[in-house]
Amino acid sequence: MRDDYIERYLDITRESGRLMLFAGDQKIEHLNRDFYGEGISPEDSDPEHLFRIADRGKIGVFAAQLGLIARYGMDYPKVPYLVKLNSKTDLVKTDQMDPRSLQLVDVDQVADFADDSGLDVLGIGYTVYLGSEDEAEMLREAAQAVYQAHGLGLITVLWIYPRGRAVKDERDPHLIAGATGVAAALGSDFVKVNYPKKEGERSEEIFKEAIAAAGRTKVVCAGGASRDPREFLQELHDQIYISGAAGNATGRNIHQKGLAEAARICDAIYAITVEERSVEEALRIYHGD
Amino acid sequence: MRDDYIERYLDITRESGRLMLFAGDQKIEHLNRDFYGEGISPEDSDPEHLFRIADRGKIGVFAAQLGLIARYGMDYPKVPYLVKLNSKTDLVKTDQMDPRSLQLVDVDQVADFADDSGLDVLGIGYTVYLGSEDEAEMLREAAQAVYQAHGLGLITVLWIYPRGRAVKDERDPHLIAGATGVAAALGSDFVKVNYPKKEGERSEEIFKEAIAAAGRTKVVCAGGASRDPREFLQELHDQIYISGAAGNATGRNIHQKGLAEAARICDAIYAITVEERSVEEALRIYHGD
Amino acid sequence: MRDDYIERYLDITRESGRLMLFAGDQKIEHLNRDFYGEGISPEDSDPEHLFRIADRGKIGVFAAQLGLIARYGMDYPKVPYLVKLNSKTDLVKTDQMDPRSLQLVDVDQVADFADDSGLDVLGIGYTVYLGSEDEAEMLREAAQAVYQAHGLGLITVLWIYPRGRAVKDERDPHLIAGATGVAAALGSDFVKVNYPKKEGERSEEIFKEAIAAAGRTKVVCAGGASRDPREFLQELHDQIYISGAAGNATGRNIHQKGLAEAARICDAIYAITVEERSVEEALRIYHGD
Amino acid sequence: MRDDYIERYLDITRESGRLMLFAGDQKIEHLNRDFYGEGISPEDSDPEHLFRIADRGKIGVFAAQLGLIARYGMDYPKVPYLVKLNSKTDLVKTDQMDPRSLQLVDVDQVADFADDSGLDVLGIGYTVYLGSEDEAEMLREAAQAVYQAHGLGLITVLWIYPRGRAVKDERDPHLIAGATGVAAALGSDFVKVNYPKKEGERSEEIFKEAIAAAGRTKVVCAGGASRDPREFLQELHDQIYISGAAGNATGRNIHQKGLAEAARICDAIYAITVEERSVEEALRIYHGD
Amino acid sequence: MRDDYIERYLDITRESGRLMLFAGDQKIEHLNRDFYGEGISPEDSDPEHLFRIADRGKIGVFAAQLGLIARYGMDYPKVPYLVKLNSKTDLVKTDQMDPRSLQLVDVDQVADFADDSGLDVLGIGYTVYLGSEDEAEMLREAAQAVYQAHGLGLITVLWIYPRGRAVKDERDPHLIAGATGVAAALGSDFVKVNYPKKEGERSEEIFKEAIAAAGRTKVVCAGGASRDPREFLQELHDQIYISGAAGNATGRNIHQKGLAEAARICDAIYAITVEERSVEEALRIYHGD
Repeated sequence: MRDDYIERYLDITRESGRLMLFAGDQKIEHLNRDFYGEGISPEDSDPEHLFRIADRGKIGVFAAQLGLIARYGMDYPKVPYLVKLNSKTDLVKTDQMDPRSLQLVDVDQVADFADDSGLDVLGIGYTVYLGSEDEAEMLREAAQAVYQAHGLGLITVLWIYPRGRAVKDERDPHLIAGATGVAAALGSDFVKVNYPKKEGERSEEIFKEAIAAAGRTKVVCAGGASRDPREFLQELHDQIYISGAAGNATGRNIHQKGLAEAARICDAIYAITVEERSVEEALRIYHGD
Repeated sequence: MRDDYIERYLDITRESGRLMLFAGDQKIEHLNRDFYGEGISPEDSDPEHLFRIADRGKIGVFAAQLGLIARYGMDYPKVPYLVKLNSKTDLVKTDQMDPRSLQLVDVDQVADFADDSGLDVLGIGYTVYLGSEDEAEMLREAAQAVYQAHGLGLITVLWIYPRGRAVKDERDPHLIAGATGVAAALGSDFVKVNYPKKEGERSEEIFKEAIAAAGRTKVVCAGGASRDPREFLQELHDQIYISGAAGNATGRNIHQKGLAEAARICDAIYAITVEERSVEEALRIYHGD
Repeated sequence: MRDDYIERYLDITRESGRLMLFAGDQKIEHLNRDFYGEGISPEDSDPEHLFRIADRGKIGVFAAQLGLIARYGMDYPKVPYLVKLNSKTDLVKTDQMDPRSLQLVDVDQVADFADDSGLDVLGIGYTVYLGSEDEAEMLREAAQAVYQAHGLGLITVLWIYPRGRAVKDERDPHLIAGATGVAAALGSDFVKVNYPKKEGERSEEIFKEAIAAAGRTKVVCAGGASRDPREFLQELHDQIYISGAAGNATGRNIHQKGLAEAARICDAIYAITVEERSVEEALRIYHGD
Repeated sequence: MRDDYIERYLDITRESGRLMLFAGDQKIEHLNRDFYGEGISPEDSDPEHLFRIADRGKIGVFAAQLGLIARYGMDYPKVPYLVKLNSKTDLVKTDQMDPRSLQLVDVDQVADFADDSGLDVLGIGYTVYLGSEDEAEMLREAAQAVYQAHGLGLITVLWIYPRGRAVKDERDPHLIAGATGVAAALGSDFVKVNYPKKEGERSEEIFKEAIAAAGRTKVVCAGGASRDPREFLQELHDQIYISGAAGNATGRNIHQKGLAEAARICDAIYAITVEERSVEEALRIYHGD
Repeated sequence: MRDDYIERYLDITRESGRLMLFAGDQKIEHLNRDFYGEGISPEDSDPEHLFRIADRGKIGVFAAQLGLIARYGMDYPKVPYLVKLNSKTDLVKTDQMDPRSLQLVDVDQVADFADDSGLDVLGIGYTVYLGSEDEAEMLREAAQAVYQAHGLGLITVLWIYPRGRAVKDERDPHLIAGATGVAAALGSDFVKVNYPKKEGERSEEIFKEAIAAAGRTKVVCAGGASRDPREFLQELHDQIYISGAAGNATGRNIHQKGLAEAARICDAIYAITVEERSVEEALRIYHGD
């Protein structure tokens, strides 16, 4: 399995050691909010939009739930997939109950699915809400997912978000560094966290603590809500080339655009993440120049 | 199993791609309220009434719990069955505790039952209450049911209802679209939801968001309480031919009638759903003209 | 297993289709309250009293926990047994916590016990508290018990009681009919319920709704607290020959008497239930005339 | 396994049918309170003290957790052992949360341990807190432990204590009789209960109800806190020869003494329990006369 | 496995019977607080720092989560490892919810990992929070971990901390002695506790109760927060040579220093623990004299 693992690691990072993850797993967490409404391309209302983008844009891997991949994957066989194991809706807010998200499918089911379908499944993802009253079950499931995935030669990405009644500031840089350190202790290949924020501090500087704390576990940043491409790409560039992050996990900033534009923003993100291009070069790609 | 799956898919949709599901699973959720009382045919007080209708009327599939099918199925071998895996009573209301419904039998038990009995079991159903504090367990069971059912060549229908203290408006069109999107993420063949309702909007229009969000997962609408056949059939027609739904899941509007009338309303629903007939044609069928 | 099942069904109903169940499972639910005190024969203080009665009186089946049967069964090898799978004490009242009762032993352990001991185990029993906050687990265990028991050729009896903070009137006829309908949906052979009661209505009439709702699942009534034999036998007769019940499940009205009298009341109950005798004939049997 | 069971039953009762159980399982429930402090021999501060006593005094069986036996058993191979399966600390009081104690090791692990170590393991013990909100899980574990132990030829002792917010008087004789009846329903060989107490009643008389309710399950009494040997031995004698108990389960009254005295009190207890001696004779043994 | 166990026991104690455990498992419990900030060497911000120290300093064993060991172990093959099975963050405080920490990986996964990696895994660790409302699950997991680890020839260390709403004074000497007694009842080789503290008492004296209560289970003390090396080493010396402890488990007092100094404090601790040196000699080693 070691050879499979190395091959998949090279594949998922396009041999750059950095990860461009296109996040298509928010149909459960955000329901239809991210896919329909003002400022969102009508094309995004159809789940297949995600696959069309993943097929046409340059990406490292496309993350979604197994069920969704099972329904479209056969028509998009060239896309590299990452199966997000757990998901929850955000209907129940933290002031009602701490977040709890359990595995929908098991790692060996993912592996069986990959074998049966012949699709290019490179890895698995799992979200842990640190500081939730149900943290223990999620830490257990995450540790098991990493252990089993590595045993099957799959790459792992942990989404780690401090959240719950006990968490006062989810973006606190020290806490984000705690989160990446937990990912290291769980042995994950990658960890996705939110970009830290602190009054009077520059995020790209305070983010360095989290990169260091992760050690050999590579850190990627969540893309967040849609915004101006230049601002978005500049931040991404800073995360990688100032803070030392190893890539990004971007959803809304890609799929809320129409297909052509979405594919170009993928290429732009990829240019920065994998090809070490400048923000200006990436913007030219995005604008199709 | 792929061939079995395709054959069952053609069977359950009568080769139309649309589903006429006769719902006979409410003896647990609604106890005896749906089957006995004013405005309900006395014939409905006997559970066998459901099987008699399923046997005589035109339907795509008859949904009930495994136990009920086990007790009558041998006498109704031509009926196509769908096993509803989970059910709960509605005695405990949402203001006391969020809804929680767990699988009564497992998918492999359904498959074994089909083999042993020789009955024509086409698929399985499962209800998820999105926004319940126990959502995580139901999402897990639903995902597993879909995964296992597809592995055994069975068709899947998810009933998805947003419900719980966190849910303010169960009929909100955006939320219903969230529900069908979750079904897509879980990879179900069909999803049954309630028809959206919004002050000042036409339901058949606002329902389109949910149809789009479901992508390749087909959407069917719950029939709701008994009412005037013309109104009922018109709504059904609108759902399919205006909104783009792929059928219906109807219980009370069928079984609360006497056998002959119940069979005719089945035929009328079938005419619209599967045979693409008009409301007027369907009404003539219902009236036995 | 089908042949075993049919044979056991004929045995348990003494080929009458009706069930005389002697309930010896209350040492957990009622602790020692039913077995010791004023108005209770001193013989009843010893658990063996139950076996002596089961051995001497005419019964369809004797229901008790596996542990109790294991300790006395070898000395009473002619008694037909039904293993009650779950039990709880009534120490915790509903205003403190909703009722929760889990399986003590599994159905395959019952079957192994029957094989090893050579005892005549005809079936299994399970109690579901409908409307309890823990209903989901009990419905699941009940459904599984029925599925597994039938697979092993064993007869099933479900005790179904609506109970919990959400249940205002446990004897409401509509609710009792809901309970027997749930048993039908779970596919049980028999269901034991409390006799409905409603101000201004005759119980034997309002009970008919529950008999109808159960369909092919046979309904038996709980015997309740000890009382005048004529009144008790008359009610039993009414339940069967007016309401359409298929028998009874009687505990205290039998075992709180001394052995000789207890055996005679068994014979009287049996005469009505299985042998279609009148109340007067049954009373003569009870009085040893 | 039947022969092993009979042999172990004869061993554990020293062919008397009565049980002298030396309880060495309180290091979890009572932490260090029973083993160190005023009025307690300094020898008792070392856990090995328990094994030295079990080795030198006359006993039927020595009860402790598997872990403790595993660390000392090899040096005390002649001691007959009973493995206490579950234990909890008493740090959390009933007014905070009802008692909950789960199995530390499984019965088959006990059997494997006995095989591997060659130690003389005669049985297993388990504590049930009747009336606790978590009663269902403990009743299930207890029933399973009895079922599995008997299948492996091991003797069973259930500790049954009514405890929890729902329990007003833990020493109520009717409730204690309920507890022994539950043990009978679970099929245990022995049940250990607290000695009943009631204003204006003699305990040795009111205890008879519990002995009767247990039927073929033998009742032994907890020894309680250390006190005057004459008083203690008299009570023990009364329990057996007036109430009809089948022995005792004594901890503190033994191990809180120095080794020589502890061994002599064992011999004294044994004389009454197994050898049917009088209190005076037992006291002479205790005093080494 | 007995030979493997003995060999590992000699290895982990360096044939001294005493344990120098370097604790590298706090990246989950304390997040990044222990690894970054004022008074902490910048080298400590990188998880690899822990492995560099473990590789260069004299230690008995290095404790960390499996995931962390999996990512660095191959580059530090000479380090003796102990896998900490469970961990939780300290985000949720006791006044919100009692502590609950569940096993991340199972003992057999640890053994498989050791086989596959060829690393020198000597044992496993597990934390129990005595007095927590979830104590039952942790006691069960701990007992199972010990049972399974010993079956595989692995050494066990239990971290036992009284904690939860029911615990008023976590450092109470009597309670700490209860904790070590629990470890004895669970059969662990080692138990790590906090050093007791009591107004007006000398800790090294009152700690003796805990050493005695542990019996053959060896007691090691947590090192606590960083402080003056002389004070730290004196306390360690007192614990071993006055109280009778069998070593120490030290984290922050080692890894918060730069590599060279951290290695020298390891050597100093080792000198006291394993080589029976004086505090003065240890201080000379620490100062590199």
